[in-house]
Amino acid sequence: MSITKRKIINDPVYGFITINDPLIFSIIEHPYYQRLRRIQQMAMAQLVYPGAVHTRLHHSLGAYHLMCSAINELKGKGVEISYEEEIAAKAAILLHDIGHGPFSHALEEVLILNISHEDLSLQIMEVMNEALNGQLNLTIQLFTNNYPKPFLHQLISGQLDVDRMDYLSRDSFFSGVSEGVIGYDRILKMLAVKNNQLVVEEKGIYSIEKFLVARRQMYWQVYLHKTVLSAEKMLVKIMERVREIYQKSDLQLATYSALDYFLGDFNGKMDNASLAQFCKLDDYDVIGGVKKWANHPDPILSLLCSRFLDRRLYKSSIQAEPFSAVFIQEKQNQAIKQFGIKAEDVHYLCFTGIATNTPYQQKEEMINILYKDGTVKDITQVDNTLIHQNLSTQVKKFYICLLT
Amino acid sequence: MSITKRKIINDPVYGFITINDPLIFSIIEHPYYQRLRRIQQMAMAQLVYPGAVHTRLHHSLGAYHLMCSAINELKGKGVEISYEEEIAAKAAILLHDIGHGPFSHALEEVLILNISHEDLSLQIMEVMNEALNGQLNLTIQLFTNNYPKPFLHQLISGQLDVDRMDYLSRDSFFSGVSEGVIGYDRILKMLAVKNNQLVVEEKGIYSIEKFLVARRQMYWQVYLHKTVLSAEKMLVKIMERVREIYQKSDLQLATYSALDYFLGDFNGKMDNASLAQFCKLDDYDVIGGVKKWANHPDPILSLLCSRFLDRRLYKSSIQAEPFSAVFIQEKQNQAIKQFGIKAEDVHYLCFTGIATNTPYQQKEEMINILYKDGTVKDITQVDNTLIHQNLSTQVKKFYICLLT
Amino acid sequence: MSITKRKIINDPVYGFITINDPLIFSIIEHPYYQRLRRIQQMAMAQLVYPGAVHTRLHHSLGAYHLMCSAINELKGKGVEISYEEEIAAKAAILLHDIGHGPFSHALEEVLILNISHEDLSLQIMEVMNEALNGQLNLTIQLFTNNYPKPFLHQLISGQLDVDRMDYLSRDSFFSGVSEGVIGYDRILKMLAVKNNQLVVEEKGIYSIEKFLVARRQMYWQVYLHKTVLSAEKMLVKIMERVREIYQKSDLQLATYSALDYFLGDFNGKMDNASLAQFCKLDDYDVIGGVKKWANHPDPILSLLCSRFLDRRLYKSSIQAEPFSAVFIQEKQNQAIKQFGIKAEDVHYLCFTGIATNTPYQQKEEMINILYKDGTVKDITQVDNTLIHQNLSTQVKKFYICLLT
Amino acid sequence: MSITKRKIINDPVYGFITINDPLIFSIIEHPYYQRLRRIQQMAMAQLVYPGAVHTRLHHSLGAYHLMCSAINELKGKGVEISYEEEIAAKAAILLHDIGHGPFSHALEEVLILNISHEDLSLQIMEVMNEALNGQLNLTIQLFTNNYPKPFLHQLISGQLDVDRMDYLSRDSFFSGVSEGVIGYDRILKMLAVKNNQLVVEEKGIYSIEKFLVARRQMYWQVYLHKTVLSAEKMLVKIMERVREIYQKSDLQLATYSALDYFLGDFNGKMDNASLAQFCKLDDYDVIGGVKKWANHPDPILSLLCSRFLDRRLYKSSIQAEPFSAVFIQEKQNQAIKQFGIKAEDVHYLCFTGIATNTPYQQKEEMINILYKDGTVKDITQVDNTLIHQNLSTQVKKFYICLLT
Repeated sequence: MSITKRKIINDPVYGFITINDPLIFSIIEHPYYQRLRRIQQMAMAQLVYPGAVHTRLHHSLGAYHLMCSAINELKGKGVEISYEEEIAAKAAILLHDIGHGPFSHALEEVLILNISHEDLSLQIMEVMNEALNGQLNLTIQLFTNNYPKPFLHQLISGQLDVDRMDYLSRDSFFSGVSEGVIGYDRILKMLAVKNNQLVVEEKGIYSIEKFLVARRQMYWQVYLHKTVLSAEKMLVKIMERVREIYQKSDLQLATYSALDYFLGDFNGKMDNASLAQFCKLDDYDVIGGVKKWANHPDPILSLLCSRFLDRRLYKSSIQAEPFSAVFIQEKQNQAIKQFGIKAEDVHYLCFTGIATNTPYQQKEEMINILYKDGTVKDITQVDNTLIHQNLSTQVKKFYICLLT
Repeated sequence: MSITKRKIINDPVYGFITINDPLIFSIIEHPYYQRLRRIQQMAMAQLVYPGAVHTRLHHSLGAYHLMCSAINELKGKGVEISYEEEIAAKAAILLHDIGHGPFSHALEEVLILNISHEDLSLQIMEVMNEALNGQLNLTIQLFTNNYPKPFLHQLISGQLDVDRMDYLSRDSFFSGVSEGVIGYDRILKMLAVKNNQLVVEEKGIYSIEKFLVARRQMYWQVYLHKTVLSAEKMLVKIMERVREIYQKSDLQLATYSALDYFLGDFNGKMDNASLAQFCKLDDYDVIGGVKKWANHPDPILSLLCSRFLDRRLYKSSIQAEPFSAVFIQEKQNQAIKQFGIKAEDVHYLCFTGIATNTPYQQKEEMINILYKDGTVKDITQVDNTLIHQNLSTQVKKFYICLLT
Repeated sequence: MSITKRKIINDPVYGFITINDPLIFSIIEHPYYQRLRRIQQMAMAQLVYPGAVHTRLHHSLGAYHLMCSAINELKGKGVEISYEEEIAAKAAILLHDIGHGPFSHALEEVLILNISHEDLSLQIMEVMNEALNGQLNLTIQLFTNNYPKPFLHQLISGQLDVDRMDYLSRDSFFSGVSEGVIGYDRILKMLAVKNNQLVVEEKGIYSIEKFLVARRQMYWQVYLHKTVLSAEKMLVKIMERVREIYQKSDLQLATYSALDYFLGDFNGKMDNASLAQFCKLDDYDVIGGVKKWANHPDPILSLLCSRFLDRRLYKSSIQAEPFSAVFIQEKQNQAIKQFGIKAEDVHYLCFTGIATNTPYQQKEEMINILYKDGTVKDITQVDNTLIHQNLSTQVKKFYICLLT
Repeated sequence: MSITKRKIINDPVYGFITINDPLIFSIIEHPYYQRLRRIQQMAMAQLVYPGAVHTRLHHSLGAYHLMCSAINELKGKGVEISYEEEIAAKAAILLHDIGHGPFSHALEEVLILNISHEDLSLQIMEVMNEALNGQLNLTIQLFTNNYPKPFLHQLISGQLDVDRMDYLSRDSFFSGVSEGVIGYDRILKMLAVKNNQLVVEEKGIYSIEKFLVARRQMYWQVYLHKTVLSAEKMLVKIMERVREIYQKSDLQLATYSALDYFLGDFNGKMDNASLAQFCKLDDYDVIGGVKKWANHPDPILSLLCSRFLDRRLYKSSIQAEPFSAVFIQEKQNQAIKQFGIKAEDVHYLCFTGIATNTPYQQKEEMINILYKDGTVKDITQVDNTLIHQNLSTQVKKFYICLLT
C-alpha cells in the first residue's frame, strides 16, 4: 500500500488532529477554507472572556476530528460505512460553516440580509465541487440529508451532532467556563446506529443530560451574557447606522474591502459573482471599517464605533419579565438628553429585545436512546432525567441596552 | 473597611483573575490597554498552531495574575512589600507590553524603525502617568529599575520574571504544545528574596531546569518553527516591499489607517503626536492592508499578499550549517525564472537568515539559588543540572525561504 | 514577624496545598490523621473506575485547601474573620472525616453499629483536644454549630460546604468521570456572607446549578453505579456472614487486628478504650480479613471472599420500579440451586434493595442567593433554574444482586 | 462480521480505554491480573505525594491503551502488523508487570531474593499460557524478544516503550508533579518502523528530548525524593529485621498470609507451588504485617513498624559527595544513644547508600531518529540536543538516613 501524506495538527482541546486524505487536504488548503482563520468563532464574547478568540477554522477542524472518532466508533461496532462515505462525512463537517460571514451569528442578520449561513455554505460547496470535478457530490448529499443513511447527516447536523459537541467543548475551553465542559469522548463511545438512525446507548443517558445542561449553561453564561450581548448589539447597530446613512459617494464610509459591495451594489441575489465577493469578507473588514468610521462626521456612527473599540459598551440588564414601557421611555429620554440626539435615532443608543434558548428541541430532531433489549425511546420519555420537564421548554429573557 | 469594586475574569490558563484596585481598573479600561485586544500574542504562529490566537491583552492580564501570586508568596514568607509597591508592580506588568505594535515581534523591526517596544512602553506609560496625575510614578521606577528593591523589577523583567512564566504557560496552552508547559505555580512557591534580590529556594532547582528546557523547546518547536518563520518573514517582506514602492500619491497603497502615517510622514522621532498615531495601530490595519495590496498592480506585492492570505507560504528549511552560496544561487535562479522577476528583487522570493536562541543568558541577569544554609549560587554553578553545559550556549540555525 | 514553617503539598486536583500554621501541622502529623491514608475515599468504586483509589487523607487535605480559599475570598470582601476563627475552621474541615472507618460509607452501618461517623469524628476531636490542651475548643464549637458565626459551620457542613466541593472535584478527577467536574473556584469566588449566613452572589447561580447537577450525576454514574453497589454489598454481606458465624474460638476468623475487637468484645458503647481500638482500624484490616476468610471452611464466607478478591461480583440490575416477588423468587431459587445453599442463607447470594438520592434537600439547609439589591432567596425560589422542579425531589431506584 | 463484546474503562489520564478482544478480556478477568489492584504503582511515594496511590493494574491498563494507539499509528503509516501480532503485543504489555510483588520495586530485592520481577512475569505468563491453551505463545515470544519483528518487542520494552510512556504520564498525573508530564501522544504519532526497528521521525526530536528530561526530573523529584527513599528504606529495614529474627514458632511474627511462606519455608526455587503462593501476595499482606509487628516484643521491629505507620520516618539527606566516615559515625552514635540499641543493630536506624539515575542508557537500546532522507541516527548523535552531553551520563547521589 502506498503511504499517503499525513499531517498532524496540534489542538489544545483534543491533542492532535490527523489529516490523511487528499480530498481533505484540498479542502483545507482552499482559500475559502483559509478565510475561516479570519473569522472568530465567538464574535464579541472575547470582550468578557478574553481567551475566547478562536476561529471558525479551528472549530471546523475540531468538528472534523470528532467526526473521525465518531466514525471509528461506529465502524468498531459493526456499522457499515464505506471509505467514500467516511470521507464525505468528514468533508461535510469541515465545510459546514464555510458560509459564515464576519463575526458569524452576531452579524448574520445584518450583513447579508435574508440568506442564512447554511444556504451560503451549500452554495460555496457547490462552487468548490465544480472546481473539484464532483468530488464533493456525496458530501453535498450528506449535508442536505439526501442520502439513504440518515445517521451520517445526523452526525453533521442534529441534536447531537459533532458540530455542537465541538463548539461546546471548544468554547468552554477557550473561554475558561468550566460549566460548559461536556464528556464528548464518552458521548462518542455511546453512539450507535439503529435502523439507519443515530442513537445513544442507554448507559450514555447521563452524558447526554450533562451535554444538554452544559449547552443551557453556555447560553446563559456566555453566548447570551449581558455584556457579550451588549457588544454584539453595538456592532449590529453600527452596521445598521452605516446602512442608514450609506451613500456610495461618501468616501469616509468606504472600507475598500468587499464590505463596500454588500453595503452598496449587492441586490440581494447571491449569484456567483456576489458569492466570490462574499468569500473575501472577514472580521478584518468589519473592524477595519469600525476603526475608520470612528472618525466619520456622523455623530451616532462615530460615537458607537469609538465606544466599541474602547470597550465602553452599552450598559445592559437581563430579566425574566419584559421591561415596562415607562421604564424604557425613561431610559430613552436619558439617552436623548445625554447625547443630544433626535428621538427617532434613540434606538441606536437605547433599545430592548428578547433572548431565547431551548436546549432540547423535541420537534426538530430527537435524541434517541437505545436500550439493551433493542427498543428505542426519545430521551424526554426516559424516567427520571432532567430533560423532559425543563430542558425542552423555551426560556425567554428580556434585555435592555443603554449607552451612558 | 469599605469594600472596593472586585471583578473576576475567566482565564482558561489559571482559572480566574481577580481585579480589586482602582488604579488597576483605570489601566485596564484605558483605550491604549484595550488596543492590546487587537494584537495577537504569537503573530503568525497560528498558521501552524491554529489555537495560538490569544492576544497581548490576555498575556498581560495573565502576567498580572502571576505577579499577584508572586507577591502573595513573598509576603507570606515575611518579605516586606507595601501596598503601594504591590500595586505599582502589578501596574508595571500590566503595562510592560503596551508598546507592542501589530504582530508584536514579527514586525517590530520593520514597522517602527530603530525604536524598541520597551522604549515605546515606557513612553506610553509616561503619557498615561500624566493623565493619571502621577499615579504611575512608582510603576515607572520599578519598570526602569530605579527603585531600591531590585527584586520587584526582577519580577517584571529578568531571567525568571512573570512575563516569561506567563508567555510560556499561555503560549503552550493555546498552541497545544505540551512540551512548553512549565510548573509556574511551583516556581512561584519557591521564590524568595535575599539581600533585596530575587532568589529561588534550593528545592526549586528542578522546576527551574524544567522552565529553561521548556523555553528552549518552545523556541525551536514554535517560535522558530520553519513555517511560522516563513509566514512572519513573508509579512516582513510585504512591509518592505510597500516601503520600497511607497508613494503618498499611490492610493492603492493607502490603508486609511494609522499605518499610512508610519509608511509616509513619520520622521523617526516618536513625539507625542506620533505616539498617539502609534496607539491606534493594531493587527487589523496590517491585515486590512495586505487584503487591499493583494490587488495592487505591483506584481511582487500582490503576489506576496495573496499568497500570505491563502497560506501558500515560502517553502523553508532550517539546518545547523549555513547554506552554500551555490545552493542559494540555484534557488534564487529558480525563483527568478518561475515568477519572471528581476534579479534585484529576488530577495523578496528567496532569502536566507539566521535564527538564534539562548535559553539562559548568564551575562544579563542570573537565576540565583538560595540554599538552606543561606548561601546563594547562580544556577549554572549548581552540581548536576542540565543548565551550565547546554542551556547557556547560544544555538544558531540557518534557514532559507523560497516561494514556489 | 518571625517566619513560620511552611510546607507545600502537590495535589493533582488543585496544584499545591500550603500548610503554615503550627496547629494544622500538629493535626496532620497525628497518627489518627495519618490513619486516613489507609482508608480509600471511594471504597469499592475502584473496581469500576480504576483511578478512584485516593484516600480520606487526600480528601480532607483538599477540603482544607478549599477552606483556605473560601476564607480568603470572604476576607477580601470585608467579612470579619479572626485568625483564631480561620485556623479553627481549617482544623475542623481537616478533622471532619476523622471518624470514618474502613471503606467509609460502604461499611459504616455494618462495622460499628448505631454510631455515625460524624459522632465518631466528634469523639476523636475531643480526645485530640485534650492532648492539645484545648487548642481545638473553637474547632469543636464550629464543627457542632455552637458558635455565633453560623457561616463558618456552613462552610464545614451544609448544602454548599467545602467537603462536598472537594469530594465532587476529587472523585470526578480520580475516577475520570468528567460529568462530575464542578466549577469550585468560581463557586468560591461567589460566596458571601449576609446576616452571618453563607450566601451565594446572584451571578453564581449557574455554577450552583452545575454543582447540583454534577452531584446528581456522580450519584447515579459512580457512587450508585450498579457494579460499585454490587461490590460494596458483597463486602457488607461478607461482614454480616462473619458476624453471623462469629465465635471467639474460631481462629480462622481472627484477623489479629482491631477488627477482631469490633467483631467480638465490643459492647456497643464507644468509651475511650474502644475509641483507641477504632483508631487502629483501616482498609488493610478488612482486606486482610477477606484474604484470610477466602480459605475459611464456611462455604458461604469463602465463596463471597474469593469472589470479591477476584472481582467476580454479583450481577446486578437497577430500575425505576420494584422487582416483582415472582422475579426475585425465581432468582433466589436459581442461586440456591447453583450453589447448593440453604434457603435461609439465600440473602447472601441474592437480594434486593433501594438506592436513593436527592441532590438538593431543601428542608435541611438552603442555598441562599444574594441579589444585588441585598435581598436573599433560596435557590429553589429563583426563576428558571433546573433546581426547583427536579433536583429537590428524591429519586429512588430499585436494585437486585445475584451471584452467578 | 459478528460484533464482539466491547468495554470502555474511564481513565483520568487518557479519557477512555477500550477493550474489545476475547483474549484481552480473559487476561483482565484473571485473578492474577486482578491481584495488581492491590499493589500500588509508586510504593511509598504517596507519603510525600498523597495522590500517588494508583495501582499496577491501572498502569498496565494505561500501557495497553498506549500500545493500541502506537499500533494504530504504525498501521496508518503502512507498517504491516497482523491481528494476531497486534493482540499479542497488547497482551504482552498488559502482563509485563504481572510478576511484581508487594510495593513493586521498593521491596523487590528483599522479599523474593535473587529473582527479578521480569523473570516472575515470564513464569506467570507461562502458567497462564497453559491454562489458555497456548493463546499466549506469540505474546511470550514478543515479551522475550524472540520474534522476527523486533519493533514489537521494543514497544513493550526499550528506551521508548509504552511502559515508560505510561508510567511517566501516570505517575506525574497522580502525584501532581507537572515536571514529569510528557507529550506521549506526540511521541506516538512520531513513531515509525525502519528495517523492522522502532524509530522516531526527525520532527519528534524535541518530544524525545522532553521525554528524557521528564524522566530525569521524575527520578530526582519523586522516585528518589529523600522522604520517599526514607520511607521505602524503612520498609526494607522492617523486612530485613523480620528475616533476621524470624522463627517459625514466633506466632507474633506470623501474618497468616502468603508472606509467611516467603519468610519461612521458601527455598529460593520458584516452582509452580511457590509461584501460586507468590500470586497471593500483595501490599495488604505487608501492611497487615507491619500493623501486627508494631506490637512485637522486638524493640527494633516494633519501633520501625510504628514509626512507619505514623509516618515518623528517618530524617534523610541527599548530596553529590559521599558522607564522611566521621559524620556517619557521629550519627550512628547518636542513634545508639537515643534508642539504647546495640552497635551491631545500628544499621536499622542509621545507614547510608547511593541512588543513581541515567535517563538515557546508550549501551542498552538506542532511540533511533529517522531523517526524511531515510537515514537513521542514534539520538545522541543528533546536533544540538540536550541528550548527548548530559542525559547519558550516570548521576550518583549519596544519602544518609537516621531515625531521630
